Amino acid sequence: MEERLREQMSFALELDKEKLINRQTHLSGHGRYENDAEHAWHMAVMAWILREYANEPVDIARTMLMCLLHDVVEIDAGDTFAYDTEALKTQKVREDAAKERIFGLLPADQKTELIRVFDEFEANETPEARFAHALDNLQPLMLNHSNGGSDWKEHYITEKQVRNRHSKTQLGSETLFQLTNRILEECLNAGLIHPDEGETPAENM
Amino acid sequence: MEERLREQMSFALELDKEKLINRQTHLSGHGRYENDAEHAWHMAVMAWILREYANEPVDIARTMLMCLLHDVVEIDAGDTFAYDTEALKTQKVREDAAKERIFGLLPADQKTELIRVFDEFEANETPEARFAHALDNLQPLMLNHSNGGSDWKEHYITEKQVRNRHSKTQLGSETLFQLTNRILEECLNAGLIHPDEGETPAENM
Repeated sequence: MEERLREQMSFALELDKEKLINRQTHLSGHGRYENDAEHAWHMAVMAWILREYANEPVDIARTMLMCLLHDVVEIDAGDTFAYDTEALKTQKVREDAAKERIFGLLPADQKTELIRVFDEFEANETPEARFAHALDNLQPLMLNHSNGGSDWKEHYITEKQVRNRHSKTQLGSETLFQLTNRILEECLNAGLIHPDEGETPAENM
Repeated sequence: MEERLREQMSFALELDKEKLINRQTHLSGHGRYENDAEHAWHMAVMAWILREYANEPVDIARTMLMCLLHDVVEIDAGDTFAYDTEALKTQKVREDAAKERIFGLLPADQKTELIRVFDEFEANETPEARFAHALDNLQPLMLNHSNGGSDWKEHYITEKQVRNRHSKTQLGSETLFQLTNRILEECLNAGLIHPDEGETPAENM
């Protein structure tokens, strides 16, 4: 087999491991934990369906690719829960090493190209990256909302933490940020999110 | 919430159920069964990485979307194993009803647009559809090969059945068809696929 194709297939097979990385989000219907591959698939379809709400026009192929690949490094580095402050401190070092190893399975030109897409998502400065981040927030919010906020309750997540996480949605999509706020208001009124009063247990977890 | 966005989010949430539809393929490392959402994600990334091998230039956004959506109807119709001749007879009727209900959750314009993409994949006549079909074959072949052909052995799949399934890969990608043939030859030589001699148990399953 030609070396180039062999390298591409080696990367393709390695990707399979992303299906084993569980997130903290549960599937709708109070289902099992979702995994990274499922989350990425869901985000990519939502990118296409909701692209009219991006604040600026987006290259939809690049946005979808960004959604599909944004968690690949977790094959080595594991999932870092968005509200786990300790794990967030070491996240970048762990993920940089993973990025080098995993994308390094590809031919050099594709390694460079995909790392560029991955880094663009991380930097969150282009319309595509900002819209992809909006979806990275909205997709688990949708699932958690469908489950009566049980993921927040399980981890004692507070209003401040939730609002901080979702604040960047506004950079990618004003409309989806408004939707987010409506969902959060509803969940706060229903007592599904821990109010910001006194102790905030999640910060001590 | 505006009705249009409500409909789009209703479709997005419904998609979540695709993560519960198991296929007959096992994950690499002799893992659990793969589900439809994971398979679609894997195919879409492979579409991007391997697009240089499509027989004709492809619109990569459309190809990826096709990969992401091609099994959505299985939310209602279930997975039809590629070698289950009885189930294949009723597949179209079951999947047509599912297509109408699931894409019908979307606003009318997006329902029409996505059904067109779905039907284009099924018809297998455009470069995008043919290349997506090549990936729909190659992705499980890659996993099964990595597991020593255990999915074929489990179902007594014969050489004729395997070659028949993979013959259409050539329409989408001559290079990936050559790769497929190399893998199949290796698996036949290693006795991983039931040879076409006398009884072919799978046709009586």
